[in-house]
Amino acid sequence: MSNYKKVTSNIIVKLQIIVGVEHVLSGAAILDHYAYDAGTRKDILRYPELVVLPGSSQEVAEIMKLANKHLIPVTPRGGGSGLAGGAVALKGGILLDLVRMNRIIHVDIAAKYMIVEAAVRTLDIQNEAKRHGLLYAGDPCSSDDCVIAGNVATNAGGNKAVKYGVTADQIYELEIVTPQGKILTLGGRLKKNSTGYSLIKLIAGSEGTLGIITKITLKLQKLAPLLPNFLAIFPNLAAAVTLVEALLAEKNALDTTSLELMDRHTVIAIENYQKTKIFYGDIGDVLLIQLEAQNQEDVRFKELYLKELCSLHNCLDIRSIEGEAIWRGRRQWGKALEVDEPIGASEDLVVPVDLITPFIQNLESLATSFQFDFRIAGHAGDGNLHLRILPGTVPIEEWENKLKEFREVLYAVTYSLGGRLSGEHGIGFKRKYFLRSVIQPDELELMKNLKKAFDPNFILNPGKIFDIDAS
Amino acid sequence: MSNYKKVTSNIIVKLQIIVGVEHVLSGAAILDHYAYDAGTRKDILRYPELVVLPGSSQEVAEIMKLANKHLIPVTPRGGGSGLAGGAVALKGGILLDLVRMNRIIHVDIAAKYMIVEAAVRTLDIQNEAKRHGLLYAGDPCSSDDCVIAGNVATNAGGNKAVKYGVTADQIYELEIVTPQGKILTLGGRLKKNSTGYSLIKLIAGSEGTLGIITKITLKLQKLAPLLPNFLAIFPNLAAAVTLVEALLAEKNALDTTSLELMDRHTVIAIENYQKTKIFYGDIGDVLLIQLEAQNQEDVRFKELYLKELCSLHNCLDIRSIEGEAIWRGRRQWGKALEVDEPIGASEDLVVPVDLITPFIQNLESLATSFQFDFRIAGHAGDGNLHLRILPGTVPIEEWENKLKEFREVLYAVTYSLGGRLSGEHGIGFKRKYFLRSVIQPDELELMKNLKKAFDPNFILNPGKIFDIDAS
Repeated sequence: MSNYKKVTSNIIVKLQIIVGVEHVLSGAAILDHYAYDAGTRKDILRYPELVVLPGSSQEVAEIMKLANKHLIPVTPRGGGSGLAGGAVALKGGILLDLVRMNRIIHVDIAAKYMIVEAAVRTLDIQNEAKRHGLLYAGDPCSSDDCVIAGNVATNAGGNKAVKYGVTADQIYELEIVTPQGKILTLGGRLKKNSTGYSLIKLIAGSEGTLGIITKITLKLQKLAPLLPNFLAIFPNLAAAVTLVEALLAEKNALDTTSLELMDRHTVIAIENYQKTKIFYGDIGDVLLIQLEAQNQEDVRFKELYLKELCSLHNCLDIRSIEGEAIWRGRRQWGKALEVDEPIGASEDLVVPVDLITPFIQNLESLATSFQFDFRIAGHAGDGNLHLRILPGTVPIEEWENKLKEFREVLYAVTYSLGGRLSGEHGIGFKRKYFLRSVIQPDELELMKNLKKAFDPNFILNPGKIFDIDAS
Repeated sequence: MSNYKKVTSNIIVKLQIIVGVEHVLSGAAILDHYAYDAGTRKDILRYPELVVLPGSSQEVAEIMKLANKHLIPVTPRGGGSGLAGGAVALKGGILLDLVRMNRIIHVDIAAKYMIVEAAVRTLDIQNEAKRHGLLYAGDPCSSDDCVIAGNVATNAGGNKAVKYGVTADQIYELEIVTPQGKILTLGGRLKKNSTGYSLIKLIAGSEGTLGIITKITLKLQKLAPLLPNFLAIFPNLAAAVTLVEALLAEKNALDTTSLELMDRHTVIAIENYQKTKIFYGDIGDVLLIQLEAQNQEDVRFKELYLKELCSLHNCLDIRSIEGEAIWRGRRQWGKALEVDEPIGASEDLVVPVDLITPFIQNLESLATSFQFDFRIAGHAGDGNLHLRILPGTVPIEEWENKLKEFREVLYAVTYSLGGRLSGEHGIGFKRKYFLRSVIQPDELELMKNLKKAFDPNFILNPGKIFDIDAS
C-alpha cells in the first residue's frame, strides 16, 4: 500500500519553472516512448505521468526536493538500454531523462582521468580517451547505446573486466543527488581512502535507488600499443572452459584483457546477422581472446605462448583475427539471437570461474530434462554467463510456465555453486521476485533498511531490486 | 545523552553460559591491558566493564543478541594494533576480543583463495600463502601484530597497494555478525556481482561499527618468482616524487608493487633503531622500490630500465638491495621514530598522487611557520603519506595547542587538494572531531543514517568515526 501522490498541475508548473517549459514532456507519443526500456516487453507498457529533462545537477536537486515533498515517485533514466527494466516508471510519477546532461567536462591526460556528466555515451567516452592516447576500460557490449551513469548504476562489467575490473573499479569520484535533493560528492581522485563509510562503492550497482548519479570522474589507463585478437575453436564448451582457466593462471604473462565464450549456434546467428563468416561457427564453439602487447615481437611471443596453451587444451584451431568486426559481432550477440529465435529469455548469471564447467553441465542436463535449448555468450574470464534460454521442442503455450519452473531450478543450482543472479545487468524489477527466493532474508532486510536510510519516502526508482512500501 | 545500560551480574552469568566461564574476563590487570590500543595514549585509560572471548561466530551472535536486548555497548577488538583508537571501549560495556577465532580454515591452491577466521595474524596469512607458492597481497606495516579482520575494518593498504590495491580488493566473501546477532555472508567468490547492494564493500573500512567481521575468504595471487628491491636516493623529496610519477606511468612494464618514500631523518632513525646502515640516510631522501620479475634476465632488463628513469629524475644513486632487512626497517619506521623523538603526532593523509609535490611544499612552509618539524614515511605510489609531526623548536607547553591549530590548517590544505584525513588507518575516535570539520555535512548525515539502519541502538563500537547518541 503506497501513499504516492499524483503529479498535479501545480507541480507541473513548478517543474516547468525549474527546467524550462520545453523540458517537461507529456502526451501519448512521448509517454509511449518512455513506457519500456531494452529490458522490458513492448507489449506491456508502464507509463510515467510525465517526463522531465533536467540540464544540471542543480535542476535535478530542485526536482528531487519537490518530488520528495509531494511524495511523487521519480525514475531516473540514462540510455534506456538496461536489461532488467531499471529505467521504467513502475509507479507512475516523474520519468527523469538525463539525456541533456551529456557533456565531457574535462580530460586530464597527465593525471589520467576524465570528468563527465551522467548521460555521456560510453562509446563517446572510449573514443575521447583514445583520441588522447588513453583507454577508458569500461566496455559493456551495449556501449553504442548505454550511458555512463547507467554503467555505474548497474556496475556493468563488459569485455575488459578480466584485466581492468568492473565499472566500480573505473570510478574516482561520483556526484549524486540524494532523494532529498542534496548534491553530494563521494569518493575522490585517491588510490585509497579510509575516511568514513565508502558510500561511493555502495552507489555503484544500486540501480538508481539510493541517489541519482549526475557527474563521474573516471580513471583512464595507458593505451596499449597493440591489442591482438585471437579466436580459439573447440569441439565443445567444456574444452574452451579449461583453456579459460589456464589463460587466467597466465593472465599477467599474456596481459589478457578479454576471454569471451560463445557457443557455435550463437556465432552462427551472429554471422547470419552480420552477413560475415569470421567466427568459424561451423567448426565449433569459440573463445574470443584479446591481449595487450607492446610491439610486434611481443605479439609473436604471446601468440606462440597462447598456441602452446591451446594445444594442451583440446583446441581444434586458433586464429589471429584483425580488425574491429569480430568485436562488433560479439557486441551484437543479443540482437542476433533475437532475430534468429524471437522467443527466448535472457540470463546474466555469475559463478566462480573454476565452477563454470559444473555450471554448464547442470545447465545442459536441466535443459534436456525440460526439452529446452540454450545459447551462451559469456564473459567467461569473469564467470559471467549471459544465457538465452529457448523453448526448444516445448509447445509455445507451455513455455512461460515451464520457464518459470526452469529458472527456479537454474537459480538454485547457481546459488549452490556460490553464484548469483546478476553479474552486471542488475535486478531491476525483472528479477526481484526471484531474488526474494534466493537471497538470505536477513541480507534483504538489511538492504531495505539501507534504502530507507537513504530514501525514507521511497520515492526514488520504486519497485526496483525489491518491493518496499511507502509507510 | 545515551541510555546504554551497565553489565549486570545477571548478564555476566548469561555471557559465561555462551562462551564458558574461563572466557569472560574482568579484574584490574585484565582491564588495564584492554584500556588502550596502539593508537591511544597509555596515560589515558578507557575501560570496558568486562572482556569476552568468543570462540565462534555463533557465540558472537549470541553475545550481540544479549547486548542488543540490554543496550550494552560492544567494542570488537583484533590485534589492538590500530592507530586511530578503534579498539578501545569508549562507552564501557563489553570488549569483544576475537583472539580465539584464529584458525586458517581452508586454502584452495588451484582456485587461489583462503578462508580464515577474524583474528588470524596478517603475517601468518602471508606465510601460509607463501608455503603454497602463492601470495596474499595485503601487506600493512603492522603485519607482525595486526589481524585480518582489523585490516578489513580499516581497509588497510600497506606496501603492495600499487599493484594489488587495498584490503577491500583482496576480499571475496565476508561473514559478519550484525548488531542484532544475525550471521550474514556477504559477497561471494565472484569477479563481478550486481545482485543487490554491495554490502561487502560497505563493511570494508567501516571500523567495526556496522557489523563484526568473523570470517573472511581472501583472494590469493600467483607468487612472482623474484621480487627485486631497489633503493633510489635523492637530494630532496620533490625529486623522489617526480620519479614516483614516472614509475607509475611505467607500472605495467616494470611490474611495480611498492613505492615507499622516506625522508633522510626517518631512515637514519630506522638505521639507529635497527643498528644497520642499509638505507644510506646520510646521503639523502630515499624511495624504496619493489618490482616483480619472472627470471634473472627480466630483473636485469627492469634494473636497466629503472636506472634510465632514475637518471632522468635527479637521482643521486640507485642500488639493488637484497634480503628482507630493508622491509623490516620500513615496517619499523613508527617505532624507530618514537624512540628517536618520543613527542610527536602521527598522520595518515592521502592525496592524489600527482599532487604529492604541492602537498609537501605546503607541509614544509606550514611546518616552518609553526616552527615544527616533520618526518615522512609514505606509500607514495598511493598518495598515502604517513607523517610524524614533531615539536621542532616549539616549547613543550605550547605543543598541544599549536598542534591542534597546525592540524586544522594541514587538513584544510589536504582537502583543498582533493585529499582525505585517512588513507588506511581509519578515523576511530582520534580523528572524529577533525572529520566533523572537514566532511560535507550531508555526507556525514548520510553516514549516520546508514549506521542507524544497521545498528538502531548504536551498541556496536560506539563513539567511533562520529558521535551519535542512542535515542
